Amino acid sequence: MAVFFRGSQNLLQKLKNHVSFANVSSRAMASKTPVGFIGLGNMGSHMAKNLLKHGYPVFASDIFPESCKEIQDLGAQVLDTPAEVADRADRIITMLPSSLNVIEVYTGLKGILKKVKKGSLLIDSSTIDPSVSKEMAREAEKMGAVFMDAPVSGGVGAASSGKLTFMVGGVEEEFTAVQELLTCMGTNVLYCGEVGTGQAAKICNNMLLAIGMIGTAETMNLGIRLGLDPKLLSKILNMSSGRCWSSDTYNPVPGVMEGVPSANNYQGGFGTTLMAKDLGLAQDAATNTKTAIPLGSVSHQIYRVMCAQGYAQKDFSSVFQFLREEENQ
Amino acid sequence: MAVFFRGSQNLLQKLKNHVSFANVSSRAMASKTPVGFIGLGNMGSHMAKNLLKHGYPVFASDIFPESCKEIQDLGAQVLDTPAEVADRADRIITMLPSSLNVIEVYTGLKGILKKVKKGSLLIDSSTIDPSVSKEMAREAEKMGAVFMDAPVSGGVGAASSGKLTFMVGGVEEEFTAVQELLTCMGTNVLYCGEVGTGQAAKICNNMLLAIGMIGTAETMNLGIRLGLDPKLLSKILNMSSGRCWSSDTYNPVPGVMEGVPSANNYQGGFGTTLMAKDLGLAQDAATNTKTAIPLGSVSHQIYRVMCAQGYAQKDFSSVFQFLREEENQ
Amino acid sequence: MAVFFRGSQNLLQKLKNHVSFANVSSRAMASKTPVGFIGLGNMGSHMAKNLLKHGYPVFASDIFPESCKEIQDLGAQVLDTPAEVADRADRIITMLPSSLNVIEVYTGLKGILKKVKKGSLLIDSSTIDPSVSKEMAREAEKMGAVFMDAPVSGGVGAASSGKLTFMVGGVEEEFTAVQELLTCMGTNVLYCGEVGTGQAAKICNNMLLAIGMIGTAETMNLGIRLGLDPKLLSKILNMSSGRCWSSDTYNPVPGVMEGVPSANNYQGGFGTTLMAKDLGLAQDAATNTKTAIPLGSVSHQIYRVMCAQGYAQKDFSSVFQFLREEENQ
Amino acid sequence: MAVFFRGSQNLLQKLKNHVSFANVSSRAMASKTPVGFIGLGNMGSHMAKNLLKHGYPVFASDIFPESCKEIQDLGAQVLDTPAEVADRADRIITMLPSSLNVIEVYTGLKGILKKVKKGSLLIDSSTIDPSVSKEMAREAEKMGAVFMDAPVSGGVGAASSGKLTFMVGGVEEEFTAVQELLTCMGTNVLYCGEVGTGQAAKICNNMLLAIGMIGTAETMNLGIRLGLDPKLLSKILNMSSGRCWSSDTYNPVPGVMEGVPSANNYQGGFGTTLMAKDLGLAQDAATNTKTAIPLGSVSHQIYRVMCAQGYAQKDFSSVFQFLREEENQ
Repeated sequence: MAVFFRGSQNLLQKLKNHVSFANVSSRAMASKTPVGFIGLGNMGSHMAKNLLKHGYPVFASDIFPESCKEIQDLGAQVLDTPAEVADRADRIITMLPSSLNVIEVYTGLKGILKKVKKGSLLIDSSTIDPSVSKEMAREAEKMGAVFMDAPVSGGVGAASSGKLTFMVGGVEEEFTAVQELLTCMGTNVLYCGEVGTGQAAKICNNMLLAIGMIGTAETMNLGIRLGLDPKLLSKILNMSSGRCWSSDTYNPVPGVMEGVPSANNYQGGFGTTLMAKDLGLAQDAATNTKTAIPLGSVSHQIYRVMCAQGYAQKDFSSVFQFLREEENQ
Repeated sequence: MAVFFRGSQNLLQKLKNHVSFANVSSRAMASKTPVGFIGLGNMGSHMAKNLLKHGYPVFASDIFPESCKEIQDLGAQVLDTPAEVADRADRIITMLPSSLNVIEVYTGLKGILKKVKKGSLLIDSSTIDPSVSKEMAREAEKMGAVFMDAPVSGGVGAASSGKLTFMVGGVEEEFTAVQELLTCMGTNVLYCGEVGTGQAAKICNNMLLAIGMIGTAETMNLGIRLGLDPKLLSKILNMSSGRCWSSDTYNPVPGVMEGVPSANNYQGGFGTTLMAKDLGLAQDAATNTKTAIPLGSVSHQIYRVMCAQGYAQKDFSSVFQFLREEENQ
Repeated sequence: MAVFFRGSQNLLQKLKNHVSFANVSSRAMASKTPVGFIGLGNMGSHMAKNLLKHGYPVFASDIFPESCKEIQDLGAQVLDTPAEVADRADRIITMLPSSLNVIEVYTGLKGILKKVKKGSLLIDSSTIDPSVSKEMAREAEKMGAVFMDAPVSGGVGAASSGKLTFMVGGVEEEFTAVQELLTCMGTNVLYCGEVGTGQAAKICNNMLLAIGMIGTAETMNLGIRLGLDPKLLSKILNMSSGRCWSSDTYNPVPGVMEGVPSANNYQGGFGTTLMAKDLGLAQDAATNTKTAIPLGSVSHQIYRVMCAQGYAQKDFSSVFQFLREEENQ
Repeated sequence: MAVFFRGSQNLLQKLKNHVSFANVSSRAMASKTPVGFIGLGNMGSHMAKNLLKHGYPVFASDIFPESCKEIQDLGAQVLDTPAEVADRADRIITMLPSSLNVIEVYTGLKGILKKVKKGSLLIDSSTIDPSVSKEMAREAEKMGAVFMDAPVSGGVGAASSGKLTFMVGGVEEEFTAVQELLTCMGTNVLYCGEVGTGQAAKICNNMLLAIGMIGTAETMNLGIRLGLDPKLLSKILNMSSGRCWSSDTYNPVPGVMEGVPSANNYQGGFGTTLMAKDLGLAQDAATNTKTAIPLGSVSHQIYRVMCAQGYAQKDFSSVFQFLREEENQ
């Protein structure tokens, strides 16, 4: 969820206009075929609502039936199990917290694949291990269905306002169909390659983000200790080769920028515990592919220690504070 | 030397025009007061030539007299010792390879401070430990002179074409005088704060640069192993929060960008051994100020190991190759 | 395989005597009940032979039938599938290269659990993810069987001579039965706790071993660069708080000790690629349990890079050579 | 100060007897030549007292005159400056907190070398940068004196009881003379090689100690999270290749051993801030000699962050607590 996009306001405005237009044209359509949605948590409930807004009939399901109440009131039909959803809809979106949940929802006794129709399009927006995405795609293929991974970035706010970014992996011929659905919920839908590459792209971006953030935090801290003014240092870095998203868009030092978590005691934003989770996925992927990720590994450990030291719920830019706490000696 | 600046062509053109103008106006001046220059190595000889081009009489000195030959032919007067230079010029620029050389040239038996005139302006463009810069400033002050640190970025090419960037630390009242001289040799002259902060800014930038480069290399490598096309991954990172100078301007993966060392077998650019040296300075500064720089430290160690494994003379982006070498098993 | 045991010769002798005694008493028995053995690789084939030597009838199986030839000639009966082995023996030992193989051999279509008899004792000596061990135990329990994990240390030599060490996890009541079988193949059989703790103990030991080895290598290297004689430094460390197994028993510096891989161009011993594999398991276990292992992670990355740089087949103490290679500059 | 020695009780007893004997014989001597002592801090005051106990007349000096009160009452003669001490004694021991203090005390305006007699023996027991030791030796040589480095391990308790360990570097011919003095204050006096190697040995030992301690802490923590009993895991490690001083003599996990700081809320022992200082010296030495110390560097950073997080005054084994703090999520 920590992939943030740089975009001129103009671009965003154009995209918003585009969405509104699509919205209108959708409603104008005689009728749309239904979409299944499984996983109505913080992110999923907003996403399902945006599908409804765009005129899609929605068949929803969640392990906690109470999560379905709001979407039901908005017109969705709630079903008991993923299998029942698969029986009623041939396009299904899943949004789940972990690899294990994805495995259960797809291959469990009451899972999607028990009732999936041939030719169905299954889109998983969970952030999980790419090797699990590949396995689900193989299982789906056995049933004649197509599985695509499409993890999102942008957080709850973007989910609510329909401005998520989706990174999509899977067979290219289905990308247009995927895009049609996902543009109801997001402004960027990027095709990344074969199944699993959506996850791969997200994991890679967030790993580099973590490295850049910790690097920026320790660099700013060192500069301040050496007598540099943080705003000036930030300016110098941003016009030089030290420039990165964490230094020029999301600076971790209080007082350098407005409107970022560091200006608000590290509240909001992307929690340290979520970054630690994504770095765990990056580490798993690296271990499985025998890839050396020295700074990614150390970053993973730093965010892990921060969780142990009380920073779990703070924005991940609080690593500046973690490193800086005044010393007794 | 690895601080590279982003600048629109317009800006560069304007600055070039400005330099040409200054050039003309300088020559138009009846006469300029002489400038001392000590340290005529790869960088310093080009810098001294640019002073001559701008019409400044130059008194030069170097520990290797043969280094002075070319500049002498161009009109500079060569002297035997730093002390003699200080006896003849009240503005002196030094460009030396290490902290120890700086200490010797300033405070040695035949050093600048033995003969420096009251009111002299001493500008050190070497990249050294900021605490040494401070010490030199204190020693200079005792003699009634002003010492400023002004390390450069941009490499031999920029030194030759007069397009270096200078990061300047020292008393603010002298900055205009410093700027006047340094604009003969560079296009950006940035004031960073009290003495030592020029060094600090350079060290900080290069540390974050090293972290970003290694981070980009391992991220690209992981993505490729996970099935992503490197150009596509690079594009996704650059429009996302993983964006950094090493991913969007100096990508370490062969085939992703033109005109960078990775497109040329990692030749040219900024050598691994020089990056290891700058990271050593960053580590020293961090140790002295009791500052934690976890990723900077690991990056230092990685570039150190690379030097031991045969990458010393390759561009520092060759860390991609270092991490990627195919495994036997 | 890199857990090496310190033991006085006396202890070893006593244990050997004990084994001989057991041996004799075994042969004296009228007959022994058969034991199944699945996985006849470098390690497993030696282990199965030792079972035969101790008088146990063996039912063997391997995915590569040719691996079974030798053991068949020695009297074992070879079967086609794990399921058939389970049909014939109620004590089965498995020795497989990875978690995936274990899952397949136990839960696959022709796996042990398809035909396992109620009350059977299943002992897995593979080195795998402890969470997989736990899962296998749960699956076995459903069938009324008991699964124990018992990874080994000691390498091919110890497997051949019956001097392995086993670290055993699982229900304590079965430990005596496990011990009876494993003492045919090893001199130390340690009870570690509930299922999965055998794996945990092995992973933990090898992680600390890797840290100690790299630490010893870099310390010795630093000392030598600072002018210390390596033998003298080693002696000082070993009588001080820097002492560890890698410094006093398996020193990585050529010339310091006899009879270790560093005295033989890092041949033999425990390969870098195997250490990298075990560190991958440690990293997985740490990620799953949200445990920070900063030095374990960095060690994993170092052994991973070494594999990429041509050290895959050398003993893991070659990290000294990796760090030391002379620099060009 | 964190080099702890393993020694059989017998050996210690022998050494004690030897000390007592020396003691007696000393007192029996008609008179001893005076010894200078500079630096009467926590360690130095105890060391000077032991010199008095052994019958040496002592000329003492300290930057804080009040530190000299106690030793004066015990019979030492207190002088104002190091120069005056050098004027009165031709054997001088210095015990100072940092490299800068050593430089000042030896080469300052009122320093030892201003008045040192030809043939004097100067023994520095401070823990400092070995390159400073070498520089002091060169300066002393110019004045016809001999400088030896002899840093100690063992802490305040060992200083008080005369059981320090000294690691001595310098010209071998003087070692006997050095030994004679130092055995008044310590039980082990080790000759390490040319000047600076005493410091090198201490730095190397403490770096490996730090690595072993952090490694043990994270290994124990991982094992506990995986379900192992800490005492049992410790036992397994100690009979295996994971064994190290931190696991078998100074275990960081509360409840595993008696009489160590982990059994006493990490009070006493060797403070985190002191370990961070020694690791800073190791890092400096490694940077200066272009030596890669990946785990030493990361360990340095970990102890640095611990200082920032409130562990500065706790024993360095508290890294177990630092890594383990329960997570919120």
